[in-house]
Amino acid sequence: MILQDLLDPTLDASSKGYPHHAQPMRRSEIGAQGWNVLRGDLPLPVAVIRRDALAGNLKWMQEFAAGRGVGLAPHGKTTMSPQLFRKQLDAGAWGLTFATVGQLRAGVTAGAKRCLIANQVFRSVDLQGIADLKRAHGGLRIAFLVDSLAQLELIEGWHVAQQGVEPFEVLLELGLDGGRTGCRTHEQALALAQRLRSGKATKLVGIECYEGLGATGDSGKDTAYADALMQRVRDIAKACDEQQLFETGEILLTAGGSAIFDLVADHLKLQLSRPVQGLLRSGCYVTHDHGTYHRFMNAVATRMGCGHGLHAAMEVWAAVQSCPEPGLAILTVGKRDISYDLELPLPIAFVKPGSENLTPAPTDWTIGGLNDQHAYLRGTGPEHQALRVGDLVALGISHPCTTFDKWRWMPVVDDQYNVRDAIVTCF
Amino acid sequence: MILQDLLDPTLDASSKGYPHHAQPMRRSEIGAQGWNVLRGDLPLPVAVIRRDALAGNLKWMQEFAAGRGVGLAPHGKTTMSPQLFRKQLDAGAWGLTFATVGQLRAGVTAGAKRCLIANQVFRSVDLQGIADLKRAHGGLRIAFLVDSLAQLELIEGWHVAQQGVEPFEVLLELGLDGGRTGCRTHEQALALAQRLRSGKATKLVGIECYEGLGATGDSGKDTAYADALMQRVRDIAKACDEQQLFETGEILLTAGGSAIFDLVADHLKLQLSRPVQGLLRSGCYVTHDHGTYHRFMNAVATRMGCGHGLHAAMEVWAAVQSCPEPGLAILTVGKRDISYDLELPLPIAFVKPGSENLTPAPTDWTIGGLNDQHAYLRGTGPEHQALRVGDLVALGISHPCTTFDKWRWMPVVDDQYNVRDAIVTCF
Repeated sequence: MILQDLLDPTLDASSKGYPHHAQPMRRSEIGAQGWNVLRGDLPLPVAVIRRDALAGNLKWMQEFAAGRGVGLAPHGKTTMSPQLFRKQLDAGAWGLTFATVGQLRAGVTAGAKRCLIANQVFRSVDLQGIADLKRAHGGLRIAFLVDSLAQLELIEGWHVAQQGVEPFEVLLELGLDGGRTGCRTHEQALALAQRLRSGKATKLVGIECYEGLGATGDSGKDTAYADALMQRVRDIAKACDEQQLFETGEILLTAGGSAIFDLVADHLKLQLSRPVQGLLRSGCYVTHDHGTYHRFMNAVATRMGCGHGLHAAMEVWAAVQSCPEPGLAILTVGKRDISYDLELPLPIAFVKPGSENLTPAPTDWTIGGLNDQHAYLRGTGPEHQALRVGDLVALGISHPCTTFDKWRWMPVVDDQYNVRDAIVTCF
Repeated sequence: MILQDLLDPTLDASSKGYPHHAQPMRRSEIGAQGWNVLRGDLPLPVAVIRRDALAGNLKWMQEFAAGRGVGLAPHGKTTMSPQLFRKQLDAGAWGLTFATVGQLRAGVTAGAKRCLIANQVFRSVDLQGIADLKRAHGGLRIAFLVDSLAQLELIEGWHVAQQGVEPFEVLLELGLDGGRTGCRTHEQALALAQRLRSGKATKLVGIECYEGLGATGDSGKDTAYADALMQRVRDIAKACDEQQLFETGEILLTAGGSAIFDLVADHLKLQLSRPVQGLLRSGCYVTHDHGTYHRFMNAVATRMGCGHGLHAAMEVWAAVQSCPEPGLAILTVGKRDISYDLELPLPIAFVKPGSENLTPAPTDWTIGGLNDQHAYLRGTGPEHQALRVGDLVALGISHPCTTFDKWRWMPVVDDQYNVRDAIVTCF
């Protein structure tokens, strides 16, 4: 797909899930074809996005951020879908977050004006890519992470050899002992901030951390953990502000994945010498899921003392292709099609061919394993015994990111599984 | 990418690994750009295919099959790359194997004339897809698997409602107790073959099984297992031949993944009342790997009493982005970029920026974990202590399939990592 054409590319049967018989057409034409998943119009497996759940998720998360007085810069790596980027921006997102300059380019092409790269940037090819994008898009803001002097020296080495490249906006990353990237101590972070202030290649515009890897689902533990981490973020922000190390009119404070974002949001508001913009970077909320994030959100809801408004919007549909032994049905879906990194897929519903009546999957059904192109649906009860070749089974997912990256397009369906729209991805 | 244009599509920076600054261009133009991975011309991570190893693998596997007197129908699901399909056909493959009708379409578009679908087909949309392809491509042969009466009845139900659709060529699948698809017993298989003979929707053209899921790497066990399974294949082939259940001039006998194909190859030769074409369906051999298949092939080489000619042809390159603690370097590569289903990636080499001298990765280096966009490179020795932000690290893979499906294009490089060619994928 061509970058200029990301919003409405031409699709065809070279992408799985696209009907074999359908002519190539623009993405925007798909919703008018009258296709229905349950009626058998699409080859299986197919990953679908439920329209109403998606719309609800976009709205709820944006309202959550607004209600806490922070902005939302959804992480685009989850979906890498220009259509979903647009929906997130239209819903009121402050901007978008990415992990790489390549992802950033897709986001800017889709219309993002304010972008975070929640990752270290240091290679010439990537620094040049950012400089080129800013030159091509007037007013575009891009801030990336810095966590070491070694990284800064690479940036400075590249910058000094250029003519007229603006300083890069950077966020100082705080990390945790035993964690991933980020300065481990206040002293390291402050020393790096001072060094940033004295250089010409960068401007310090804020502080960043990522709390998601330490989330457990235990509210007591998670609250103590988030409080301690965010206190460190606030302390370094205050110290940088007192020493006038920020070179920006508005200081960015950012944290927040999709697991315990409620525990960090309030900490992103802070009184400093100039305005502070708090930013959550949640990505998985957009489709939510049936597993890991479902459980994390149950804990969020308990902490909030009310329900939450996220609903699982992504399902992968497959057919029973063989019932070779009692208790075992083989489905036409596998590792190439659905997430398996956090846990195996979860059976959620089934339907007999010719029917449009979904039956919720019985609790005895489990996916016992995946091969590249097959899933092992095991069960003990009468509904499993009644499964036949051709029956359709819907699987829920755990971790949206690793299902998104297995599909180049996905139909967007209504509650009757009519295909009403389509999105594409650009991994 | 448009189906008609699979062999030479236009690529651009919407696909990761493509240089940000490069204009969109045809795949075939990439080899002339003078890009070099070590020199930093490509953003990282990037998955590369080593040209000479690829060429050697294509040749060795084809010669292996010829030496055993069987044909090769490489499984296309591994790569889903029209360029690699062409190379496999040009190397002498009998045809290609696929898992779905969607995959098949890409293979036929790439030039395959004889195709196996090593999977059950039964849905109307897929049966119609096969019929349409055969109508559009004179002389195209497509055979798929049948393992149950329920499946056959769905095929017959669709076929009887059509006008003038030729019977489908089908292979009877034999399976194993506790296994995946396939008839569990000789009696089941023979009864199904008899039923196939009496129907008008199908023609039985051969027998299929898949042994790969039961491979252990222990030659004694694997030999006994393969012998027993293949004896069942031969027995049912003989029984079907005696009862004149085959409706074909040439009977196909097919098995063989990339793990213990040497143990099934000889069993695919059989004297029946008409010619028998044995077919191996190995897929992963084309790039081989540094993990699972590397170990399986060591066992194959020991059994053969000589070396084997497969070499790991796929590597994923990343950069060190942070060295936040002693013993830990964070790399710019994650679950979205590299296989992790059979085991985590394996560090194989590193290079300092500005150098073109690769150093083999020390044995103390391991990838301790992956996030979506990050890898944790751990080590204890002096080379790990000397790692700096910006250093390049090459990772080997275990299981080619699940790295291929994370990339839309891959550069093909020479031994100096000059980009000499490119392939695309169409998952």
